Amino acid sequence: MSNPKQIPLMERIVALCKRRGFVFQSSEIYGGINGFWDYGPAGAQLKRNIKQAWWKDVVTSRTDVVGLDASIIMHPRVWEASGHVTGFKDPMVECHRCKGRWRADQLPETKCPEGGPHEYSEAREFNLMFETHTGALRDEGSKTYLRPETAQGIFAQFQNVLSVSRQKVPFGIAQIGKAFRNEINPRNFTFRSREFEQMELEFFIKPGTDAEWHRRWVDERLAWYASIGLPAEKLSIYEYPEAELAHYASACLDVMFEFPFGVQELEGIAARGNFDLGQHQQFSGKSMEYFDDEQKQRYLPHVIEPSAGVDRIALALICAAYDEERVVDSQGKEETRVVMRFAPRIAPVTVAVFPLLRNKPPLIEKARAVFNLLQQYVITEWDDRGNIGKRYRYQDELGTPWCVTIDFETLGEKGPELKDTVTLRDRDTMQQERIKIDDLVEWVTSRLS
Amino acid sequence: MSNPKQIPLMERIVALCKRRGFVFQSSEIYGGINGFWDYGPAGAQLKRNIKQAWWKDVVTSRTDVVGLDASIIMHPRVWEASGHVTGFKDPMVECHRCKGRWRADQLPETKCPEGGPHEYSEAREFNLMFETHTGALRDEGSKTYLRPETAQGIFAQFQNVLSVSRQKVPFGIAQIGKAFRNEINPRNFTFRSREFEQMELEFFIKPGTDAEWHRRWVDERLAWYASIGLPAEKLSIYEYPEAELAHYASACLDVMFEFPFGVQELEGIAARGNFDLGQHQQFSGKSMEYFDDEQKQRYLPHVIEPSAGVDRIALALICAAYDEERVVDSQGKEETRVVMRFAPRIAPVTVAVFPLLRNKPPLIEKARAVFNLLQQYVITEWDDRGNIGKRYRYQDELGTPWCVTIDFETLGEKGPELKDTVTLRDRDTMQQERIKIDDLVEWVTSRLS
Repeated sequence: MSNPKQIPLMERIVALCKRRGFVFQSSEIYGGINGFWDYGPAGAQLKRNIKQAWWKDVVTSRTDVVGLDASIIMHPRVWEASGHVTGFKDPMVECHRCKGRWRADQLPETKCPEGGPHEYSEAREFNLMFETHTGALRDEGSKTYLRPETAQGIFAQFQNVLSVSRQKVPFGIAQIGKAFRNEINPRNFTFRSREFEQMELEFFIKPGTDAEWHRRWVDERLAWYASIGLPAEKLSIYEYPEAELAHYASACLDVMFEFPFGVQELEGIAARGNFDLGQHQQFSGKSMEYFDDEQKQRYLPHVIEPSAGVDRIALALICAAYDEERVVDSQGKEETRVVMRFAPRIAPVTVAVFPLLRNKPPLIEKARAVFNLLQQYVITEWDDRGNIGKRYRYQDELGTPWCVTIDFETLGEKGPELKDTVTLRDRDTMQQERIKIDDLVEWVTSRLS
Repeated sequence: MSNPKQIPLMERIVALCKRRGFVFQSSEIYGGINGFWDYGPAGAQLKRNIKQAWWKDVVTSRTDVVGLDASIIMHPRVWEASGHVTGFKDPMVECHRCKGRWRADQLPETKCPEGGPHEYSEAREFNLMFETHTGALRDEGSKTYLRPETAQGIFAQFQNVLSVSRQKVPFGIAQIGKAFRNEINPRNFTFRSREFEQMELEFFIKPGTDAEWHRRWVDERLAWYASIGLPAEKLSIYEYPEAELAHYASACLDVMFEFPFGVQELEGIAARGNFDLGQHQQFSGKSMEYFDDEQKQRYLPHVIEPSAGVDRIALALICAAYDEERVVDSQGKEETRVVMRFAPRIAPVTVAVFPLLRNKPPLIEKARAVFNLLQQYVITEWDDRGNIGKRYRYQDELGTPWCVTIDFETLGEKGPELKDTVTLRDRDTMQQERIKIDDLVEWVTSRLS
């Protein structure tokens, strides 16, 4: 909490996340479980939209990237090769009196609940990988891990993917999936949690082209964040000085976002050299080399790794979208409107369809037809409860860009010229216009890119 | 392996899965890990297509189902309430001599590697949930589980979702996600694995309407399997006789598929009464009741649960699609063509785009334009390697319904009437036709439903 003045805003955002079904505490009915979160209807769709946008832009719209979906539990040697078994540790201290545990570099400012200051133990190393046992025995030989990152599944399958994909270096392998880190202190809502989802690309290149490709991927990724609607003024980059780089890395840059709780990382883009392929080659005894059939030479490709967190991007989008404004309602009363200003491409619901009244079968039938039409193209929600003003406010809090109301005009009861038109209301301007049902799909889909 | 004559077919399917990047053994470079599989580029896209089809048909195209994305690790009380801690066990025996382990009801027919028959121990109960520890301590109090099904996340969040979604009973909550079962004997390729993905719907209904809603969901789900291209003659249903039903269930039916290794379950559709909500109400002390504001009554909803396995459906689609035929090649030589006859809606690649030659910039440029056009609408693959006949065979084995070749006719070099037309080749008939680039998108997208 770097800026105490901002705490109330973050609390209001967290409240909206629960109220509108973006995020719930996991296992809430049992008191919750620290570091785990569930996504409600709006949050689940928001995450799907983020992942689909990434998959389309990083994988299917390109000719030089292919997909992979590797398992979460892998052979434990993978994590010896990657360095996680020996190196993926945080220093942890315990208070002798209250038994609280913290990262040694993140000690609390609070007093010990037992009275007075905490009495810290010596720091000891704590490995952040979740352990389990695979098979019927529980011993050292059956110990496996929940992957702490998806990347190693890509490196381990490098030769298989290369041989099936008809790709040549430079090319990339991309993956989306869950990863797990047993954080000592999960914090900042969903930002630092113990279970999270990653979108990782390993882009394999010829040695010596690292700086050029690193720059290209930084540009690509920054353009992508703009394309999903994150405002430029809240984005920044942090370039690692050489002293902070891992010994094998030639460059690393973090894409940062200004959250209400501070400026934090969304994605790391690292030039990792051939460290990972080299480690797996050494530990497995299998060649990880690539044969360049034009230059007739064999080498270990280097890699550029843009590694993004889905949950962090979702939280950034939620924080960026959250807005409150004073408006005057239909009775002339001033009130606060909470509105989530998601880009239409990423909003959990693209269009909400309202029959004006729920007890008029002709309205319902016509509204169903509009719903059935729109849902083939965009995420469409049906809402027939309460008055239209309340439905607008509900959809504003979901971030639905457009609401479409089927009313008596639509049925032709107010004259033939308005028959088969609907009221389309814009989330941001709150302006309404009449639009022909026949024009709806084109009107909406043309505004999604 | 119920029919030994079929074993070679399954082996040929497994070989194709590796050769064309559908499925790899997880951690293959380290000798693999039993019960875990990775999906290569084609398999990852096939799974995405299955999940997207299910999400669209079960969630977004309906007005009475909403989505959820709950965490894999939940509070351990969830699994006490659900009955998994005490009841999710298989009987296991061990051979005293070779130390092999088997499910007591699935003993091997092979001899003991130590010579002679196996010497089995008494059967003991083995819980199939993977265990781990959450937080810095490793004791009974920190023990958590990898979820063995996604369903309980839905039940635990029933009230939260109900309150945010503006839904009324009957309505459903749907979820797609990974689940884990520490199977004693993983087998039948990806069919019975230790890590798998589920697509589960809990459809909440008024007590007394169970039989009607169970029938409706059975019909819906069978129609869905037809819509993704599983042939009716390989699908069947198994209806549980009353003696096989769980005590709380009023009906259960499995959708079965005829795999090469036998007829096996793809999806279970159960009428589970109010067992799950009732258990969570009891264990959490939180009301799971629903208030019906029309009939002014409060009750625990009953539930219909269609629960499908993504990996099993992927495997069924692969097995159903696999075909071999004798064809005559362009030189008049007879050969075997392996072709994956996926429905276009589900195929990992919808259209492959070929520039006739890779060293002619005008062909490449035009082919890029066609690729960029098509990839906005369908999964498009670029292939510029080898002769066109080989590219066709490669795409046949991927199951790509259509290949589009950009040739000198396209450039207008063979006369103005063929300018801006391409050769479109059909996977199943192997027929080729000329089609205008301007008509391509409509031609392809109209054939996807």
